[in-house]
Amino acid sequence: MGKGIYRARLGKAPNKKIVKFLSSIEDDYRIFEADIEGTEAHNIMLYEQQVLSRRDLVRILSSLEKLKREYESGKVKIKPEYEDVHEFIETYVIRDVGIEAGGKLHTGRSRNDQVALDIRMVLRWALIEVGEGILHLTYSLLKKAEEHKETLMPLYTHTQHAQVGTLGHYLLAYVDILLRDLERLDSCYRRVNLSPLGAGPIGGTSIPIDRMRTASLLGFDGVVENTIDAVSSKDVEIESLSILANLMSTLSRIAEDLILWSSSEFSFIELADEYSSTSSIMPQKKNPCTLELVRGRTGRVFGALNGVLNIVKGLTTGYNRDLQEVKHHLWAGIDAVK
Amino acid sequence: MGKGIYRARLGKAPNKKIVKFLSSIEDDYRIFEADIEGTEAHNIMLYEQQVLSRRDLVRILSSLEKLKREYESGKVKIKPEYEDVHEFIETYVIRDVGIEAGGKLHTGRSRNDQVALDIRMVLRWALIEVGEGILHLTYSLLKKAEEHKETLMPLYTHTQHAQVGTLGHYLLAYVDILLRDLERLDSCYRRVNLSPLGAGPIGGTSIPIDRMRTASLLGFDGVVENTIDAVSSKDVEIESLSILANLMSTLSRIAEDLILWSSSEFSFIELADEYSSTSSIMPQKKNPCTLELVRGRTGRVFGALNGVLNIVKGLTTGYNRDLQEVKHHLWAGIDAVK
Amino acid sequence: MGKGIYRARLGKAPNKKIVKFLSSIEDDYRIFEADIEGTEAHNIMLYEQQVLSRRDLVRILSSLEKLKREYESGKVKIKPEYEDVHEFIETYVIRDVGIEAGGKLHTGRSRNDQVALDIRMVLRWALIEVGEGILHLTYSLLKKAEEHKETLMPLYTHTQHAQVGTLGHYLLAYVDILLRDLERLDSCYRRVNLSPLGAGPIGGTSIPIDRMRTASLLGFDGVVENTIDAVSSKDVEIESLSILANLMSTLSRIAEDLILWSSSEFSFIELADEYSSTSSIMPQKKNPCTLELVRGRTGRVFGALNGVLNIVKGLTTGYNRDLQEVKHHLWAGIDAVK
Amino acid sequence: MGKGIYRARLGKAPNKKIVKFLSSIEDDYRIFEADIEGTEAHNIMLYEQQVLSRRDLVRILSSLEKLKREYESGKVKIKPEYEDVHEFIETYVIRDVGIEAGGKLHTGRSRNDQVALDIRMVLRWALIEVGEGILHLTYSLLKKAEEHKETLMPLYTHTQHAQVGTLGHYLLAYVDILLRDLERLDSCYRRVNLSPLGAGPIGGTSIPIDRMRTASLLGFDGVVENTIDAVSSKDVEIESLSILANLMSTLSRIAEDLILWSSSEFSFIELADEYSSTSSIMPQKKNPCTLELVRGRTGRVFGALNGVLNIVKGLTTGYNRDLQEVKHHLWAGIDAVK
Repeated sequence: MGKGIYRARLGKAPNKKIVKFLSSIEDDYRIFEADIEGTEAHNIMLYEQQVLSRRDLVRILSSLEKLKREYESGKVKIKPEYEDVHEFIETYVIRDVGIEAGGKLHTGRSRNDQVALDIRMVLRWALIEVGEGILHLTYSLLKKAEEHKETLMPLYTHTQHAQVGTLGHYLLAYVDILLRDLERLDSCYRRVNLSPLGAGPIGGTSIPIDRMRTASLLGFDGVVENTIDAVSSKDVEIESLSILANLMSTLSRIAEDLILWSSSEFSFIELADEYSSTSSIMPQKKNPCTLELVRGRTGRVFGALNGVLNIVKGLTTGYNRDLQEVKHHLWAGIDAVK
Repeated sequence: MGKGIYRARLGKAPNKKIVKFLSSIEDDYRIFEADIEGTEAHNIMLYEQQVLSRRDLVRILSSLEKLKREYESGKVKIKPEYEDVHEFIETYVIRDVGIEAGGKLHTGRSRNDQVALDIRMVLRWALIEVGEGILHLTYSLLKKAEEHKETLMPLYTHTQHAQVGTLGHYLLAYVDILLRDLERLDSCYRRVNLSPLGAGPIGGTSIPIDRMRTASLLGFDGVVENTIDAVSSKDVEIESLSILANLMSTLSRIAEDLILWSSSEFSFIELADEYSSTSSIMPQKKNPCTLELVRGRTGRVFGALNGVLNIVKGLTTGYNRDLQEVKHHLWAGIDAVK
Repeated sequence: MGKGIYRARLGKAPNKKIVKFLSSIEDDYRIFEADIEGTEAHNIMLYEQQVLSRRDLVRILSSLEKLKREYESGKVKIKPEYEDVHEFIETYVIRDVGIEAGGKLHTGRSRNDQVALDIRMVLRWALIEVGEGILHLTYSLLKKAEEHKETLMPLYTHTQHAQVGTLGHYLLAYVDILLRDLERLDSCYRRVNLSPLGAGPIGGTSIPIDRMRTASLLGFDGVVENTIDAVSSKDVEIESLSILANLMSTLSRIAEDLILWSSSEFSFIELADEYSSTSSIMPQKKNPCTLELVRGRTGRVFGALNGVLNIVKGLTTGYNRDLQEVKHHLWAGIDAVK
Repeated sequence: MGKGIYRARLGKAPNKKIVKFLSSIEDDYRIFEADIEGTEAHNIMLYEQQVLSRRDLVRILSSLEKLKREYESGKVKIKPEYEDVHEFIETYVIRDVGIEAGGKLHTGRSRNDQVALDIRMVLRWALIEVGEGILHLTYSLLKKAEEHKETLMPLYTHTQHAQVGTLGHYLLAYVDILLRDLERLDSCYRRVNLSPLGAGPIGGTSIPIDRMRTASLLGFDGVVENTIDAVSSKDVEIESLSILANLMSTLSRIAEDLILWSSSEFSFIELADEYSSTSSIMPQKKNPCTLELVRGRTGRVFGALNGVLNIVKGLTTGYNRDLQEVKHHLWAGIDAVK
């Protein structure tokens, strides 16, 4: 299996540096569990459609479950000679239960619809997680606003005093913005939570698969109907990153306000010790590092959105390897927000 | 009035170059009519609230209607010594009906909520216009898909033949994506179509205005409740540009496909004469310039989105003059899409 | 001439909306004079190479000089039915001196090398202008630093007091950064100031032109040797915008400092009246609008750089109409800096 | 040492999640060796300046060398409870040789000038490495150009045949562009290779250090003179990423050409097996994945440049924690190019 199962045909083994360059393993850990679950659902459906025997199904599922347990206990280390996580998992199952059962694992499926599936599974979890984060923050802001509904403070325009207001009024402004972010996440989620599985490389497959069944097994609300759309489009990924960038632009403004308010000239607030850093030379200082990093991380999300827009722009229809890079920016954007 | 009505207090007249630098007049033509209509609604409400006399209202409305007709007939030329369109219109009315009536024009209103109103009025028109454009394109694609539901063509992955499909299948993929863009526009529209009027500079006003009334007169679904939010947030502008950027990324891919298909090596399609350009030196050529510009204009929208994200990031809460620049990018993005 | 001279072959007149979409006239005013001068140099060279008769040269030059005078006196208005400034100028000369002489205007030249020439001519002027601006600013900062070499002030890290320093020390930091910007402009200028003329559409021309001669007549240091490079590359445009973006990122930080220092909490400085704006509702305020716009305009330059990178990325070699858009971003970036 | 040496003063131990959020450890591995070498040079200078005893110097250097060997043999694992690599190394030395000698390690130095030093050390290595890569590529292109100086091929404009040229002509165009990239790297290198060490937190130090000596020990051409400039500016980082982005925009165009040429419609070239991938379902295909990834990775570098511009824009002068993020984008950009 030295050459990798997907390269059996090509005469020459690929150059080591090239394999490493092509490999998406680093960005693939995150889809590991999604890939196993997607594969399980696909094989259950193949069995129900009588494409796979019960015996082969049992072997495949047992092997996948074993791998999942190994992964969860931190034992799995994917070597960079694997092109991607799909190849790694397939190779594992074939080694484990033999080529006869394991070789059927991908019947009626392509890496193109498979990776599109994995990305959507991870993305919907991430949207939910970000949504929960927004809810928690909103809740904290609401509580603080209640406490400070009569705490007077200057309202600023042009960083100059403009009118007198209350801290509660200020905090509620951000509650309203964050609730709009939540609305956006919610609409986006409905476009993300559709299964692309069954689209094959681009034009579907002649194997009698049941797309609705795998979608339902995996908790999707439906399928991405058009197969070309399912493997080629990246608009929901762009939408997700746009929403995260919008959210970060809001958080960066709160951070800026608080950094200013904690300066000795403003002295409106004192930061809690656990959110500050000191200086090695000037121990009397309390630096608003957490806030500065919120502001600074905004650049990661803007950069990630920018990266994906760049990749997709002017790309021919159909899967192109460039799209592998979309994962990278998506995870980078999601991590920066969390 | 040589110093501009907003500068009456400051001792020194501003430097000419500075006035030109500060002036947003170039980007303000687009909000001219919205500004007049917003001012009319505001003054009607002031009258209903018994802040303005019937006589003053009549004078103000007549003067504004006169200005609107002049604007429509192309007679209005705003000189760059005006800081913005608001100052120009106010000065016009004061000159026209005298300082007694004209001077009350802005009672209970600030330029901050006023410009926020204008931008939302223009933005909702733009979203509708883009939405109509998408509908027309979708309709054309559907008709073509119907015609070509049995026209065979290779489907590509990696710009290599992958499977055999039909042109209809290809075209319908883009119908589906465009319909998602339409969904996004629609949700965004609901967040845009709320009136910020009444927010004053940032903390409202002590004049007994009726925010719901102006909102209703101007066709809004409601108000942006929190006044700080109303004048400070730019998330709906970011959302709008994100949607346009997403749309353009899709259109750029269609353009790329068609450019390739019209090359002599592919020769799948011949472009209609009216969408092509020739070469001055090589008259036999038919260049896919329209498509290339669709692809190239994508950069404008990405750049506009990028510009707005940059401006908003890390800005203190409240109106800052930086936000004047948001208009610029918004119009640039909208124009590039249209 | 109703169809435009470049479209003589194609059967159908182009759709009006398409012509407007394709037209680069708006971005072309800026290259008007450069285009005339480039055409003059080209025709002088053609005469010296005995490709053009003395009589035709005289006619062409007279007509171009006449047009230049009309342009300078503000009389020229290019209608959008012209695809670009090149077509407009050629049509003018042909109408003025007849097709016999005027029709030879472009012998041995393509719009591709012509527009590349124009852009480089305007770009080198712009780089010089920006460089002068940096020198003036540096000089002012140096003078202020001299005055304030003993004016104590807190030096900040994390927007918190860190050490005591002098205002002179602060100002000199920006002198050093700006001098590096100047170094960058200077290196870039040497790459910009090379003539692409003679590259034809992409592979040169069989007419016996003399590239060194036109380069020398137009004040270039040499030629862009490789013809494909001359019409296809945009790296010097990207480099120019990168330098401007870098410069603006520096100016935006100075602006941020000064905005903060002019807040009532800091009160380090009071802004001169002529650089401030007041508020319509709060006349006591002095808003740092000029500084806010410096900070806000930064977004335009970042957006322009972003736009060009997007356009160029993944474009096939050779002139593509997408590149017409590079002009747009280049001018936008240059204008925002000036 | 449970609270981290930099936090000795603050009452509360920081929240675990906050420490992880603040920690730059992940991006710090790359500066590990540079940090050790910088510390060694700094301590040698302290000894020469009679600030440090010979005995303490020997202890410190031995400990640092030991740590370096452990690092090189892969044994060092920095736990995320360390805020950064500087804290980790200092803690190591203190544990190793005691607080008496180890505690003097940072005399006259701040983390601000220290990290600025580390970044410049790594950045100059990276610029050299990228420069070597360009030289190799240029050399290969030159050799191929020599072989193909008479190989005819169509030259394209608008992805349409324009003129007949040679493959050699095409390849030499990219040699010329790449040599300009090399020029840019070279000028940039001269601005990077200056030592910021000695700038302290922002305003220098009262310890009698010798900045020129540490600069010379570490192979710098000189120092960044102004201390505020030394710790606050990020223009050389922006310049470096701009150059990389420019380079990638060029490489992405070569990739696009070759992808097209390897399509069955063009069939100009056949990709070497070792640079291609196959399809799991369609083993006859040879996908230009390496080229697609070159094109796709361009997005990472654009995103990184964008991220840094965003972070720096509008930041107050002096070190802000946001700047920690610049490292992240710098490494991301550099890795994507390599």
